[in-house]
Amino acid sequence: MSIKTLHKGETGVFLTNTRIIDKIGPKPAQTIVYKNPPHIIGRMTVVGAKEGKGPMGKYFHRVLSDDKMGEKTFENAEIKMLTTAIDGAVANAGLRAKDVDLMISGDLLNQVTTSNYVARQYHVPYFGIYSACSTMTEALNLASTFISAGHFDNILCSTASHFATAERTYRYPLEYGCQRPPYAQWTVTGAACSVLSSEGNGPKITMGTIGRVVDFGTTDLNNMGAAMAPAAMDTMVALFRETGSGPKDYDLIITGDLGKLGSDILRDLMMEQGYYLGQRYIDCGNMMYDSSQHCYQGGSGAACSATVFNSFVLDKMLQGEYERVAYFATGALMSTQSCYQGETIPCISHAVVIER
Amino acid sequence: MSIKTLHKGETGVFLTNTRIIDKIGPKPAQTIVYKNPPHIIGRMTVVGAKEGKGPMGKYFHRVLSDDKMGEKTFENAEIKMLTTAIDGAVANAGLRAKDVDLMISGDLLNQVTTSNYVARQYHVPYFGIYSACSTMTEALNLASTFISAGHFDNILCSTASHFATAERTYRYPLEYGCQRPPYAQWTVTGAACSVLSSEGNGPKITMGTIGRVVDFGTTDLNNMGAAMAPAAMDTMVALFRETGSGPKDYDLIITGDLGKLGSDILRDLMMEQGYYLGQRYIDCGNMMYDSSQHCYQGGSGAACSATVFNSFVLDKMLQGEYERVAYFATGALMSTQSCYQGETIPCISHAVVIER
Repeated sequence: MSIKTLHKGETGVFLTNTRIIDKIGPKPAQTIVYKNPPHIIGRMTVVGAKEGKGPMGKYFHRVLSDDKMGEKTFENAEIKMLTTAIDGAVANAGLRAKDVDLMISGDLLNQVTTSNYVARQYHVPYFGIYSACSTMTEALNLASTFISAGHFDNILCSTASHFATAERTYRYPLEYGCQRPPYAQWTVTGAACSVLSSEGNGPKITMGTIGRVVDFGTTDLNNMGAAMAPAAMDTMVALFRETGSGPKDYDLIITGDLGKLGSDILRDLMMEQGYYLGQRYIDCGNMMYDSSQHCYQGGSGAACSATVFNSFVLDKMLQGEYERVAYFATGALMSTQSCYQGETIPCISHAVVIER
Repeated sequence: MSIKTLHKGETGVFLTNTRIIDKIGPKPAQTIVYKNPPHIIGRMTVVGAKEGKGPMGKYFHRVLSDDKMGEKTFENAEIKMLTTAIDGAVANAGLRAKDVDLMISGDLLNQVTTSNYVARQYHVPYFGIYSACSTMTEALNLASTFISAGHFDNILCSTASHFATAERTYRYPLEYGCQRPPYAQWTVTGAACSVLSSEGNGPKITMGTIGRVVDFGTTDLNNMGAAMAPAAMDTMVALFRETGSGPKDYDLIITGDLGKLGSDILRDLMMEQGYYLGQRYIDCGNMMYDSSQHCYQGGSGAACSATVFNSFVLDKMLQGEYERVAYFATGALMSTQSCYQGETIPCISHAVVIER
């Protein structure tokens, strides 16, 4: 086994964006190095009661006491949750809704309705995206490109998921009382929004790596971590190879929601590729609940990594604990229909690098 | 009634992109003027048998005799159709699959599975998007931004829809034999792909206008044209106002799939805004079928405008008949779930301007 990682300070690659562009050229295959890196100037996270009781609870900005938020349907609760996160992030950025140039959002529901109905409330240009639980990093990638190119100043990136709506959409309605296998994960009830801006003092998104669809032949709708780990590996190896970096060049490497089993698989897969992830690697799904909460492999859902990133991770970056973070959200791209028809589960992982 | 339109040659605005940027500044609210406009260097359209028999039939590149394409499910047929369109467009561009830097695709099915499963076959960076029947212009907008910013050279933009899969997803399974009201449209069975490139001699995408979500309170899942017309108006007025142009500055103005009723509504709405669309305005839904085909208001679906644009419209541009075309695809952003829960239908329209 050869460990190909580079040591911080030894490479000279990671000093400035210009240096990276000089070294690797402007067009690596999957990674974009932003000439004008956008700043994260505002953020807000909202989570359900169960998530509030987990190890990350103290970092979230708002914890709901009622997962229905007083609404008649869980779907409307998800809409209200996302609206709360966006309003909070815009206020946190010191902006007003009219200052927002573009909104990029996606979620897990059929026809991305949570985002679409929320976008209706803000009369701003809007791109709907779909990347399952990798939505937040797809949004951050797109927004960074628009800001770096000088087209817009302030862009909202947001996503949401809800345990009850996701179970209805992907598995069984809650009323069915289906038993969950030990390798199952629990969809996070939550919403998160980051406000990216051309100006500001917040952490900067300096690079983005666009994922490719990877399918290792998993078919079990309950075992998302095993399905998504190869996609995380594919994107992580692309970022490392294209920028000449390794795990030690990052103070923190986070994946979206592989869960306990999935993140162990990722460690093994990366080791096969010659990269030892070690202590600096954490998985948001793994961190969301403690073992007394009976969530088996941990959290999943588009809001899982989006809420942890926008609370815990950015808090620690602002406090100076982490200088450079690589964030790989991971998404499983099937539908119930495709799985009923015998298809395997294609997965993807988009990444961004955030620096103070 | 005041007609605020400008006459071609009178404005001096539309000479070059640089002139437009000089005049309107680099940051209008919704419209992006590309500094390095991408070229459309390849395209391919595939349609079903019914679409092949309509007035546009002779322009499409491939007409299927079997809408199932020999597959066991309609969903797999949609995947095969989109794969055929992409392979054909890449070949038409004179490229090989490995020359493709990025794929941007979306469709109508739950969790955008057609695009996701097709993306699995091409091991290239991939962004999944959702914008219902406005998918093609969202993809063209995003791709143009990435190419204009210098990040990538060759980008695939693609979408597909299928009558049988869309009916299952949005309304009733075909087996139910539901009667259709006279204001209904018919989802186009088809797929289309455009290859955009930083180099080439093809028509250029010079501007993009990003839509906002508009909802005038329509609730009828069968009456998409009426729901989408206000969104088309919103984006059309934005393009005209932000660039100081009017209908007469374009040789052709096309909307996605408003159908007969919807396109009449758009004419009225635009007249109220002071713009007379006249003969230069056509709707792709309106052109897809003839009255003997019993499709009532005409075609709809993500493939409707995408196939007409990539065949008929680009043919006419290459033959010199049209110099400047404004293309507004329109999308209805509901799901069956949201409509069952009593929600109205939010809509959006993204636009691009294509010039020879």
